[in-house]
Formats: sequence, structure tokens, C-alpha cells
Amino acid sequence: MGAYLNKYCQTPNLDALAKQGLLFNNAFSSVSSCSPSRAQLLTGQASHASGMYGLHQGVHNFNVLPEINSLPNVLREQSNGRVLSGIIGKKHVGSAANFRFDYEQTEEQHSINQIGRNITNIKHYAREFLAQAKREQRPFFLLVGFHDPHRCGHITPQFGEFCERWGSGELGMGSIPDWKPIYYDWRNLQVPAWLPDTDIVRQELAAQYMTISRLDQGVGLLLRELQSAGLAESTLVIYTSDNGPPFPGGRTNLYEHGIRSPLIISSPKSTDRHHETSAAMTSLLDIYPSVLDALQLPPPNATRISGKSLLPVLQAEPAPQEQDAVYGSQNYHEVTMTYPMRMVRNRRYKLIHNLNYWSDFPIDQDFYTSPTFQQILNATINKQALPWYRTLLQYYQRPEWELYDIKADALERVNLVDKSKYKDTLKQLRQQLFKWQVDTADPWRCAPHAVLQSQGVFKDAPVCLTLGHEA
Amino acid sequence: MGAYLNKYCQTPNLDALAKQGLLFNNAFSSVSSCSPSRAQLLTGQASHASGMYGLHQGVHNFNVLPEINSLPNVLREQSNGRVLSGIIGKKHVGSAANFRFDYEQTEEQHSINQIGRNITNIKHYAREFLAQAKREQRPFFLLVGFHDPHRCGHITPQFGEFCERWGSGELGMGSIPDWKPIYYDWRNLQVPAWLPDTDIVRQELAAQYMTISRLDQGVGLLLRELQSAGLAESTLVIYTSDNGPPFPGGRTNLYEHGIRSPLIISSPKSTDRHHETSAAMTSLLDIYPSVLDALQLPPPNATRISGKSLLPVLQAEPAPQEQDAVYGSQNYHEVTMTYPMRMVRNRRYKLIHNLNYWSDFPIDQDFYTSPTFQQILNATINKQALPWYRTLLQYYQRPEWELYDIKADALERVNLVDKSKYKDTLKQLRQQLFKWQVDTADPWRCAPHAVLQSQGVFKDAPVCLTLGHEA
Ligand SMILES: [Ca+2]
Ligand SMILES: [Ca+2]
Ligand SMILES: [Mg+2]
Ligand SMILES: [Mg+2]
Repeated sequence: MGAYLNKYCQTPNLDALAKQGLLFNNAFSSVSSCSPSRAQLLTGQASHASGMYGLHQGVHNFNVLPEINSLPNVLREQSNGRVLSGIIGKKHVGSAANFRFDYEQTEEQHSINQIGRNITNIKHYAREFLAQAKREQRPFFLLVGFHDPHRCGHITPQFGEFCERWGSGELGMGSIPDWKPIYYDWRNLQVPAWLPDTDIVRQELAAQYMTISRLDQGVGLLLRELQSAGLAESTLVIYTSDNGPPFPGGRTNLYEHGIRSPLIISSPKSTDRHHETSAAMTSLLDIYPSVLDALQLPPPNATRISGKSLLPVLQAEPAPQEQDAVYGSQNYHEVTMTYPMRMVRNRRYKLIHNLNYWSDFPIDQDFYTSPTFQQILNATINKQALPWYRTLLQYYQRPEWELYDIKADALERVNLVDKSKYKDTLKQLRQQLFKWQVDTADPWRCAPHAVLQSQGVFKDAPVCLTLGHEA
Repeated sequence: MGAYLNKYCQTPNLDALAKQGLLFNNAFSSVSSCSPSRAQLLTGQASHASGMYGLHQGVHNFNVLPEINSLPNVLREQSNGRVLSGIIGKKHVGSAANFRFDYEQTEEQHSINQIGRNITNIKHYAREFLAQAKREQRPFFLLVGFHDPHRCGHITPQFGEFCERWGSGELGMGSIPDWKPIYYDWRNLQVPAWLPDTDIVRQELAAQYMTISRLDQGVGLLLRELQSAGLAESTLVIYTSDNGPPFPGGRTNLYEHGIRSPLIISSPKSTDRHHETSAAMTSLLDIYPSVLDALQLPPPNATRISGKSLLPVLQAEPAPQEQDAVYGSQNYHEVTMTYPMRMVRNRRYKLIHNLNYWSDFPIDQDFYTSPTFQQILNATINKQALPWYRTLLQYYQRPEWELYDIKADALERVNLVDKSKYKDTLKQLRQQLFKWQVDTADPWRCAPHAVLQSQGVFKDAPVCLTLGHEA
């Protein structure tokens, strides 16, 4: 993305959106896994609070807690049915009753590629939805979930690792009418410093960029649909992504590349800061209150709101505060991946708490089959050198606490947790993180060395009681 | 229980039931956690296959997979609505749609003590249900889930650790009209060898026995209701328990005291073996096919049945087979307890696979506050001796594989896994366990050192691919 200073991957439509809006440079997902992240956007709750502890589909079978309501339901209820809600593309959350959009075109009705990567289909359904909103003169909330640039090599490798060839018009690939594929030369790329600079990684990046450009063209189509419907001048547009790229240290991690998210907000009402950037510390937990704010609806009673509306930032950059921070809560991804983590990150430091640090960091099925991971794995087994700043065994084995000075050490290489110089920083961040866990009723807030007691005699004053692990 | 040779705890009604039926000496739950075990009984599926990986209630939020159907639904469908189903007492499974009884009186309608421990209420609702079955001349399936002898000290300690004083007629305890409390003298008990012989443990056992005797009187009331309704001569009665007692090594463990279950089956049709015992290796996974068998209904198409009907055993003891074994699959209990385990046990040996052996064994909230655990914890922290054959740190720290000769070593003290003499036994049990995991589509079947691939190119031939942990 040009807007985010990647000069290789072409995203003219997103760059144009950034010019008409505010680009956030410090936006972070609170979780690095698909369903929990989507649930975060739609409920405003961290993964540990929503109950969407991992993936929704198949054997993983995670669902939000019965009492947790999501944007489409909340908007319907708070507006007495006036707001029209819709979802096109990837949904991947549940249960259905907790996420009931008025208009749904998702993988529940279509094959995931046809609804998530076929930008012509996306355009068509968006047109239908917008026509209804206009015809009925209703305010609306439309969520478009592109499946690009998700991996698909573990399921349909014949279409490429990212399904980048699917719909390209090449022999046997079918064709997406509105898509003009952009092919990237893997020799002519800059591999980010956090990945090994190998031909295989380059080829993966080239494939992924191809799908990012497809997504970009999809965004262009959607913005033109808004124009054609005459709704562009009254619609707030938010662009973001649910988690970092599926590369080592990315998705399923709370490292920078697992949680850093693009975020562009374009409002025709707030034009003051168009084509500016914001350095506000921003969480995707802020999206839920922002949407309610944009539709001028109050949150339901008794809803615990973790985030804050971002609309004021569209007017003026907030002054940095000492306590500015974002938080992370990763639980399961796949149900078998027993590696919960918690994180707090301010402008300078990041603290990660690995709650099951005894265990090896788990690898998910999609990522496992990726050429990048396979190259790292095979080099490790065959004791071959690899141009990477980590080893796989280091990647698997993590200490209970990780403290990084992100400003000085963007790659999170030097763990400062045992350095006496950072004792106060560590103490303050631990307190801040624990406070967040308590405030958000984290079931894991006493893990791993204590047991939470919050019932019976402890109901009014929950406590963490020692397990005596260190006895 | 006299029937199981405990001469202290008085259970005259269960003993009488055993005289009118067959008592199983080798019955085992496949899981040692409440909701997963109840789901096992009602779906015939191991915890890893049903999707009920842990507790149903509150933040744990586990539910069976949407496609998993349970006995009340299956009986209704397979009998075209003829069979009447009912549940009285503890339900603790979900989602509701997957467990829809025609008649429900559970913690969803009542306070748990009033429906699970008040044997007069249980009697009253059973009478109502049986009257309906008789009036409508319908075959029926009634599940009565006593909450006794579950702990309650973590929630309502004022009623005693097991709510043994609740309803006893003592000051402030209320009264259950049909209950004649039996008080046990803790000085005059035999503490089982697997527990520390301390005054505190003795007091806990005395309290628990008091609730077992309440349960026993409840069983007596139910059997008399069957008589009064004229249904005793046509009703198969099954008595069992969902998991072992909440003591160290019991509930949440796959050790003997976590999974050994009482099992009595009394059939007025099969009187040949009344007052006999069976040594058949029996799993609670066998209950689901037994109920279908008793009602002469086939299982639904495409249902994977793990167990086998026990009704033939009521006619004749099956000849022991080389491969006779029961299996265990423990996943989460509380959602924060990331310690999945698998187990196979034949007549002589038991093999346990601790999938997250790196981690310390987790302690659940109910058990944590128990006087027994508190005594063990405090002795450990204060480095005091305790009359127990284990230490707490040994209890926490378990190797990946545990192999025991149960016949020679009932307390599972001597792990044989590294002994060359048992190499073949180990190999054979590992193969048998892995085969069961494959046959039951266990999502954890490649854990912890490999990744399961079962999609895309691996769809027809799933594989476990190495993570290179030992590289
Ligand atoms: Ca994703
Ligand atoms: Ca239980
Ligand atoms: Mg995914
Ligand atoms: Mg329980």
C-alpha cells in the first residue's frame, strides 16, 4: 500500500481513500485470529470477554456468550428497526442469533471465494443492499468482509497459495469480470526485515500482493457503488483488516506484525483532516463505539464498552497521554492451540504475558503448509542456515514475560524483562495490563500461577489465589 | 456403597437395586468433567468428537457441534414422536436445540439445589412425568441428574462443603420432607489409600457420604414412583455417575478415581443375572446405544457410534477379548484449563498421553477451595509433611506418557513408560489409542508434536506432519 509506504504493492483505490480520509498509523487489533477479531469489531469486546475465544467454524466451534450482542442486533434495537444492516463476504462468527444482519450474503450462502474474492459479486450485492437502503430511506451499516488476502494453499493449492490465480482469466482459473490482475515480479520486491529474504518468501509476497490488489480494486468498486447510489456524501467509510499477515510472527501472534492493522476512516462530514495521518493509539475495539457514534445511537444499557469512538480524532489529533495504550488478548485460534497470551503496548514499550509459556508456541493448519513455514521447518530439521533473525526453536519457546522497546527494537528481538534498568517500566505495564484484565472480566486474569475465585464468598471481591507452583 | 464394598457409606436403595440388577465392576467414564460427561451419555460421542470440550455454563461456553444430536432428539425422531423424553435435575449441556427433552425440570427452571438435591421435588416431578407417560401410553426415557454429591463449598459454604446440611432440618438449613439425614462420624471411616489420611479429609468424606445417602434415598423414592405408576415391570433402570469424586487425582483426571464409575443396570426383562457382577470392560459411551437398544430403535443414519449396547451383558458375561479396553478423552473442563489428555485402559494396563505435558496440571475453582486441596497446598508452601503418597509438585508435573500396571499398582505410582520390559506393551497401547483417536476423528490426534492436515490435498488421507520440536 502506497498509503502505508509499501511502494511495491499497488493499491490506488485505498491510497485514494486515504487522501479523502484520515490514516491511522497506530492502529492495532486486540487479537490476531479471524473469528475473535471479527467478533471484536462487532461486539466491542476483547476475545476473552466476548466468548469468541477462537475460530467459529467446524470442530473449533467457538461462539460468543449467549448474552453478548453484536452491532447488527444492537443497531436494530437501539434504532427501533430503522437502521438497515448488511454483511457481504466473510462472516465467520456466531452463533447466528447473536449476529443477525438484515441482509446477509456470506459463506453461509455462497462458496467463500465467490463471495469473498469475486469482486464482481461483491459489487453486485452491495448495489442491491444500497438500493434497498436508499429506497427505504434508512440509515445503514454495511460490513464487507473481503476474504483476500487470506491463504488458501492448504485447501485449494491449484489456485495458488493465496488463491491469487483464481478468477485471473488464466487457463482453468475462471474469470472475475471487474478484476484486472496485477502480476508482481518476486525478484523485484523488498522483503520486510521480519521475514527471511528467500526466493520462496518473495514468491509468497508476490502472490499475496496480487490478492491485495484485487481487494483494492474491490474497494474501488464499492466506493463507486456508493457514488452511483448518491450515498457517498452521507456515508462514513472505515477500512481495516482483522489481523496481520499469515507469516511467522504475524497472524496468531501479538508481535507487531500479528496485530498492526491498516485503518482509514473517511467521513464526508469531517473533512478537516483529509489526507492526514493520526498517531493516536487506536484499537479495533474502538470500531464498535465509533459506529454507534456515527449513527448517533447510545450503546445498550449494561454494555461494557472497552473502546472509545474515533470520530473526535477526525476533527483533531488528541494530545498524547502518559497512559495511552492498546491491549491484546489471544486465546485459542484453533481449539487445539492452547497458547493464551495477553499484551499491553504503549507508544514505546510492549509487554506480552504468555500464559502457557511452558508449552511450545502452536502452529495453525493454514500457516503450517505455507511455503514460508515449510522452508523454515525443513531448514531447521536439516540444520541448514536461513536468512532469518530468529530460529524456529526460539520462535516456539517463549518466556513467560516479553518486554520490548518498540521504538529502539522494531523487530522485538531484545527481551528487556530481566534488565534492572526496566524494572519500573515492567512493573507499571504489568499493573496496567492486569487492571485491563480485571476491568474486562478476563477469565484468565489469574493465569497461570493462580486460580481466580469470583463466586460465593468471593463474589463481591474476586481474588487470585496461589497454586504454589514455586513451592 | 455396600454394593461396591464401601462399608461406611450407607446406600440401602442402591444396594437393593444392585440385587435386582447387574453391577458392573469395570465401568469407566470417557471423560472426567461434568458437561462433557453428560454429553457423552446423551450423544454417545467422546468429548473431542461431540464438541463439548469442557463446561457448558458461563464463560466456559462449550456446546456440542451443531450437527451432533442427543438422545431426546434422536428418540423423538427415530420413534416418530412416540417416545416421551424427560430430564429432572442437573442438565448442564447445550446448546438447547441439541438437547431438547419433551419434559424439562432443571437448573434452567429452578435453583440447582431445589431441583438437584431436594429429593422431594425430584419425586414430585418424576411422578408428574411418569403419569404423563402412562396416560399417553408412551414408551419413555427419563434422565434424573442428582446434583449430589457435587461440591458447593466454593459458592455456598454455609451449607457445608457438599451442601450436606442444606435441607437437613437443622437451624437455618430448611428441610427436605423425604430426607432422613444420616450423619457420619469422621473418626470412624476408612480413608481410601489414594487420599491423605487427615482429619480434614475425613471430615470431607463424612460430609460427602451424607449427600450420597441423600442421593440414595432419592433413588429409593424414584423406584417407588415407578412401582406406584405400575411401570416397574416394564422399565429398564440404569444408575451411574458422570465422573469421579472432586478430590486430588479424581475429577478432571484420567487416573482411576477420575473415571471409575458405579454402574448398575436393572432390567425386568433380563432377570438371569440379577445380583451378579460383570467384569466386562464398560464405557459410559455404551449408554447411548444401550438406550436405543432398549427402546428397539436404530441409531440415525450417519451416526458414528463409539460404544456398544450393554443389554447382551445382562444375559451372559461376554468372554474377555485381548483387545478389550476403554478410552478416555479429557479436554478443558474450565475454558482456561489447557491440559488435554488421552487414555486407553485394558484389564491390566493404562496408558495416558498428556498432550500439554509441558504445562502444570490445572486446578479447577471448585476443587481449589476444598479443605482437602487447601491442606495439601498449605503443607506444600510451608514445607510440612503430609500423609500422602504424592507431592503436590509431582501432581502438577506429569510426563508426556504415563504407563501403569493397574493390577499390580492400583494407585498408579510407578510409571513404566521408560522400562524396556514394557516396550511392546507401550507400543501396542500407543497404536490402539491412536487408532481410536483416528476412528473418532479426534482434532487433537496429532498433538502435541505434529499438525493435523485433513483438508484440501489431504482430505482423503489425513496426515500428522511434524513440527520439528526435537530438531
Ligand atoms: Ca483473518
Ligand atoms: Ca460432575
Ligand atoms: Mg483464518
Ligand atoms: Mg461441576
